[in-house]
Amino acid sequence: MPVNAFYAQSGGVTAVINASASALILATREHPARIGRLYAGRDGILGALREDLIDTGREPAAAIAALSHTPGAAFGSCRLKLGPPAQDHDRYARLLEVFRAHDIGYFFYNGGNDSADTCLKIAQAARAQGYPLACIHVPKTVDNDLEGTDCCPGFGSVAKYVATSMREAALDVRSMAATSTSVFVLEVMGRHAGWITAACGLASDARLALPLVLLMPEVRHDEARVHARVRAEVDRHGYCCVAVSEGLRDADGRFVSETGMHDAFGHAQLGGAGERVAGRLRERLGLKVHFAIADYLQRSARHLAAATDLAHAQAVGRAAVAAALRGERSVMIGIERTSERPYRWRTRSVALGRVAGRERALPRGFISRDGFGITARAREYLAPLVRGEAPPPYREGLPDYVQLRNRAVDRTLPAWVRD
Amino acid sequence: MPVNAFYAQSGGVTAVINASASALILATREHPARIGRLYAGRDGILGALREDLIDTGREPAAAIAALSHTPGAAFGSCRLKLGPPAQDHDRYARLLEVFRAHDIGYFFYNGGNDSADTCLKIAQAARAQGYPLACIHVPKTVDNDLEGTDCCPGFGSVAKYVATSMREAALDVRSMAATSTSVFVLEVMGRHAGWITAACGLASDARLALPLVLLMPEVRHDEARVHARVRAEVDRHGYCCVAVSEGLRDADGRFVSETGMHDAFGHAQLGGAGERVAGRLRERLGLKVHFAIADYLQRSARHLAAATDLAHAQAVGRAAVAAALRGERSVMIGIERTSERPYRWRTRSVALGRVAGRERALPRGFISRDGFGITARAREYLAPLVRGEAPPPYREGLPDYVQLRNRAVDRTLPAWVRD
Repeated sequence: MPVNAFYAQSGGVTAVINASASALILATREHPARIGRLYAGRDGILGALREDLIDTGREPAAAIAALSHTPGAAFGSCRLKLGPPAQDHDRYARLLEVFRAHDIGYFFYNGGNDSADTCLKIAQAARAQGYPLACIHVPKTVDNDLEGTDCCPGFGSVAKYVATSMREAALDVRSMAATSTSVFVLEVMGRHAGWITAACGLASDARLALPLVLLMPEVRHDEARVHARVRAEVDRHGYCCVAVSEGLRDADGRFVSETGMHDAFGHAQLGGAGERVAGRLRERLGLKVHFAIADYLQRSARHLAAATDLAHAQAVGRAAVAAALRGERSVMIGIERTSERPYRWRTRSVALGRVAGRERALPRGFISRDGFGITARAREYLAPLVRGEAPPPYREGLPDYVQLRNRAVDRTLPAWVRD
Repeated sequence: MPVNAFYAQSGGVTAVINASASALILATREHPARIGRLYAGRDGILGALREDLIDTGREPAAAIAALSHTPGAAFGSCRLKLGPPAQDHDRYARLLEVFRAHDIGYFFYNGGNDSADTCLKIAQAARAQGYPLACIHVPKTVDNDLEGTDCCPGFGSVAKYVATSMREAALDVRSMAATSTSVFVLEVMGRHAGWITAACGLASDARLALPLVLLMPEVRHDEARVHARVRAEVDRHGYCCVAVSEGLRDADGRFVSETGMHDAFGHAQLGGAGERVAGRLRERLGLKVHFAIADYLQRSARHLAAATDLAHAQAVGRAAVAAALRGERSVMIGIERTSERPYRWRTRSVALGRVAGRERALPRGFISRDGFGITARAREYLAPLVRGEAPPPYREGLPDYVQLRNRAVDRTLPAWVRD
């Protein structure tokens, strides 16, 4: 008899997380003898706690296919980190109660660091209770900071977006620098790791050299050095573009823009590093400075997704189903780079214990000696990830994104009174 | 004997201003018996004052063709407004001296309001001196605020960009609103007119309804009303997206974010309206609010240019040459909408006196009664302008933009000591 599956999206979204969902849903449908219904959690793992399940089988096939070109998290996502089992016992018990009530034997969790940790803990809780549950983590994060994988689905597209945006803005600033703005600052995401900021470095290459300064969180912010460098670029080229990580830290390790607010995971809520850097450049160098904050635009820019990234996202979705059917119980699907030139890759299963709770920083060898740029090795790593275009269909000039019905499955359990 | 031509780019750039340049340059080459060399001004009209001319004939044909997919202003632009002839006599005299020295009989000026005014004044100065000069204004502005034309080349692409970005960000916010951000604010350009903010309204339509609130400069900012509306949208939909014009004004007509700084045209330099609105929403409604500032990203996003807009930009470039050859002396090339359904258009010449110094506000009939949205008439107007995709070629995952050589022509006059 087949058992059912549960899929949830977790944490910040990406341009291609729904492509993983689409591929995973379609893959489960190829195995009706082993996988019955595929339920999605409304608003991520909250849907499991609240027994608010969406029957993906009731969505038209065309809508599931269209998920592959639709950004955001089609079933809803959430930031909810489960504590250690001893402390969060009620939640683990509730999750397993809901899984049992809906005959769920496969748990697919599509997220980043925190969800890898949650996935592992649920696997442990299920094992402790003797409940048969395959827990498969499907990686997704624009931050590219997961261990156990060469890259994270979602990163390639944000990298392509920020590099393209920086290149375009640089041509703009260069045009106008004689009488207007001579310094442009772009703030990009990356709480602890500078992967996205590093990707901005691709904007400049041998064919189109642009004066860029990258301020990554791995390099402590030394304002005087930054100002001297920007001044030198403006003196030489007439303008300069600066990419600032939202997670930029000063010499004492404090965020350059610490708001004092925290999100549900306890992470400091950032915002403003770009503005701070721009303001100080204006003040100290007396130049006209503009700044942009890409914010959510960067992680939802499906219109500019990288074909490589899309292929990764679809592959980890499919591979997750295959791993579950092979009997794997507690793994993440990683991307392995098997060849550099030509770029080749494959998926592989990685024990969740190797992934959960870890963060992969930008390697020191990716940062240029002066701390303001990227090395040839970084370019070699990044280049294939942004390659290829995968535009969505357009309708009346705008991307034609799908809206699911997201019909709820009938509840069978008492209501859950806490989240 | 042929005479030479001069082309200059003026003011803020657009995604397609170089497409006008490309079409214009190629059109001049079709008439060697009447048009000799085409010089471009380095950094716009400054190039003429400084006698810093670029011989476009020395650029490879492939580079001129590639201009049609390259953002920014390939020859450099500037913000320099010439005063009334009585007051700015030296500059007009110098311009005509440079034109005479290089046998220039055609002046093509590619810009917005201020450059239309400059173009007219130069035409008047030439006439006063009996110097034969065709002064043709080639329209360009993301602000869409020029009189005498149904739309401005550059606007359709920024409209497509902001509508797409808002749609994508809305899907992001909607995904996460259960536990994270429930209000997203996007600040867009538009100093006095709300055309770009209005275009954000296209993000939501009958197929994909999104809770949007548009804050246009035409509607005085009433904070209490805005907060009530956002609160209502969040209560009903779980989230809300707000587009804020940089030129948003309060009840007293002051910019919501007045920095007190001014640019070279004497316009107040804005920035921060979106942040201000976001901060107040956070403070007053107690919701988690994120904001993005599109800044230069929106006006240089050639990767997302609208095919209609590109066609307009190329057409006005070609038509400018045709008008000059017909003997027109002081006109702008406008776009005339000849049919709504199907959308049809053509170029036409408009007397510069009808354009210069005027600004076209968003018609009242385009703004919904509550002041927070756009009407069906606005949609009908905007829809064809964002239609069609015209992606640039990509190389290694990024748009392959061209870099011109921009070789200077030898000077023949004494140096110009002021700008």
